[in-house]
Amino acid sequence: MEEIKSMLRAVFLTKNDMTFPVSGTGSAGMEFCFANLIERGDEVIIGVNGVFGTRMVDVAERCGAKVTKVESPWGKIIDPQQIAAALKIVPRPKLVAFVHAETSTGALTPVEELSKLAHDAGALLLLDAVTSLGGCPVRVDDWNVDAIYSGTQKCLSCPPGLSPVSLSPRALETAAKRRDKVQSWYLDVNLLANYWGQERVYHHTAPISMNYALHEALRLVLEEGLENRWRRHEENHLALKAGLKSMGLEISSQEGHQLWQLNAVRVPEGVDEAVLRKRMLIDFNIEIGAGLGPLKGKIVRIGLMGHTSSKSNVHECLRALSHILNELGHKNDTVAALAAAA
Amino acid sequence: MEEIKSMLRAVFLTKNDMTFPVSGTGSAGMEFCFANLIERGDEVIIGVNGVFGTRMVDVAERCGAKVTKVESPWGKIIDPQQIAAALKIVPRPKLVAFVHAETSTGALTPVEELSKLAHDAGALLLLDAVTSLGGCPVRVDDWNVDAIYSGTQKCLSCPPGLSPVSLSPRALETAAKRRDKVQSWYLDVNLLANYWGQERVYHHTAPISMNYALHEALRLVLEEGLENRWRRHEENHLALKAGLKSMGLEISSQEGHQLWQLNAVRVPEGVDEAVLRKRMLIDFNIEIGAGLGPLKGKIVRIGLMGHTSSKSNVHECLRALSHILNELGHKNDTVAALAAAA
Repeated sequence: MEEIKSMLRAVFLTKNDMTFPVSGTGSAGMEFCFANLIERGDEVIIGVNGVFGTRMVDVAERCGAKVTKVESPWGKIIDPQQIAAALKIVPRPKLVAFVHAETSTGALTPVEELSKLAHDAGALLLLDAVTSLGGCPVRVDDWNVDAIYSGTQKCLSCPPGLSPVSLSPRALETAAKRRDKVQSWYLDVNLLANYWGQERVYHHTAPISMNYALHEALRLVLEEGLENRWRRHEENHLALKAGLKSMGLEISSQEGHQLWQLNAVRVPEGVDEAVLRKRMLIDFNIEIGAGLGPLKGKIVRIGLMGHTSSKSNVHECLRALSHILNELGHKNDTVAALAAAA
Repeated sequence: MEEIKSMLRAVFLTKNDMTFPVSGTGSAGMEFCFANLIERGDEVIIGVNGVFGTRMVDVAERCGAKVTKVESPWGKIIDPQQIAAALKIVPRPKLVAFVHAETSTGALTPVEELSKLAHDAGALLLLDAVTSLGGCPVRVDDWNVDAIYSGTQKCLSCPPGLSPVSLSPRALETAAKRRDKVQSWYLDVNLLANYWGQERVYHHTAPISMNYALHEALRLVLEEGLENRWRRHEENHLALKAGLKSMGLEISSQEGHQLWQLNAVRVPEGVDEAVLRKRMLIDFNIEIGAGLGPLKGKIVRIGLMGHTSSKSNVHECLRALSHILNELGHKNDTVAALAAAA
């Protein structure tokens, strides 16, 4: 348990004592953060630019928050000016929250400016790092993040089942000084702190097989080195992007803020994305994701996360895409695409 | 997923459609049941005769319930007369809840009469079957249980991490017709029903490795046969009890209602139970549990659950206990104890 906490701190780049895996998947981590920090009637500003920002609003409202939504088109980032504008209307929120890497759209919202705005307003900063952790820089202490949650099955390449979280001392104090009990007994950090702390007071039976799996996954992440791992994700993203460009395809998320681990690709005119995905799966054993919400039918999502972010996967994916798109009438040159990605 | 649901129905002895594993440990299953069925201000009667009844009260209150506690001494069952008396004070509760097999004390509270009392008062019946499921009869439909949760790591002999649950049609309807949203997004059965139902609408990423483990554990339970499995647990309990008696030890929970899978043993006068447990672990590699709450220092708890409920484990445990107790001054005859358990 101490090794897991210590390795998680190394991966989150934090000294936060309260850094541990919640016994549930990423969405349980989201609920852990909101349930511990929010009390009925608290004002919260949430950036919404995809599925997971939308989910945050639902979770926060169920915790009793008064939510002010800051919406961006799906695929775009949450802009500091938008948060600044919201802070004019809600000048003293308890919390500002947004999704770092939106898995549903492929956009990476920069954290530092938003963090400064939140803290200048006296708010805590809550960050969803489900898809970012382990695949691109996540700097909890440098960025002054108060509450962060992730998942194990994205760039940490561990089975799903746990949600690594970290709370700053200020967030912990907020949870400790609540007026009312945390509405979830299972996720109450005040109880969990006695189990994951030195006392090891029984709370719930830990999912030990999952904890061992996470231990090994974290060991492999640190063996590779965080910066090497980020660079690998970046290089494979750039290779995929170059190959796609050569085939006349483009990444649909905002230029300059495109995720390395999740590539949202605009489906070319005249191609049925459902057919494309089905043939990728059946003919080439490659599963790519559909677009969600307003992006449904318009994009496909190609994951290059953790272990799967490899040069050979990029090439296999491009070869398969090129082959199928040629058959579906979107003519392109496979050899040129692979050369561009080389 | 369909096979897991179908095998769980066979183990719970129910036709309930909404029978599936919650993506968290047993305590998440407890919270699932209360969070979905309780709304702020609802009257609830809870039987409290150990750690887990106490926990139910805490969880229910965090869901906004007005709880009436029906307390029995730890080690005793919840008596129908007590529930009947509570129903005189709170005649129309939303819910009556208690723990079937109290892991902290070794007492098994019979369900049928309590279920009748609850339903006659128009209440739903909620049952904790964490330790009972797979080790002794649990008859959801015959007993008219509306909401039940269990754990995977007790008598199902699967790693911890999931909580099998089942809701009756009436419980499901109660959750569907709520005034307010379920306070937990992660545990909201109205959302989970669309994922575990035919639609497979994405909710959260399922802990798939755990689900596969549960699939295999359930397959093994049904391969042995439920009734054979219950009989095995009963026989090994009786063998242990006979061996203990020959050594002058007795089961501390209420006679006639003693769990087969969890044997609470009164520590003899003059023996330090912490020393006993430590030597069992260090000298014989056998871990037995301490007493909790009012039973701390007075009992030890010997688990014979699932795969570990075996004749050879009973004998090894008795041999070790006999050896250590002789050294600690509680004289007894090892050969006679083993013969009694044969």
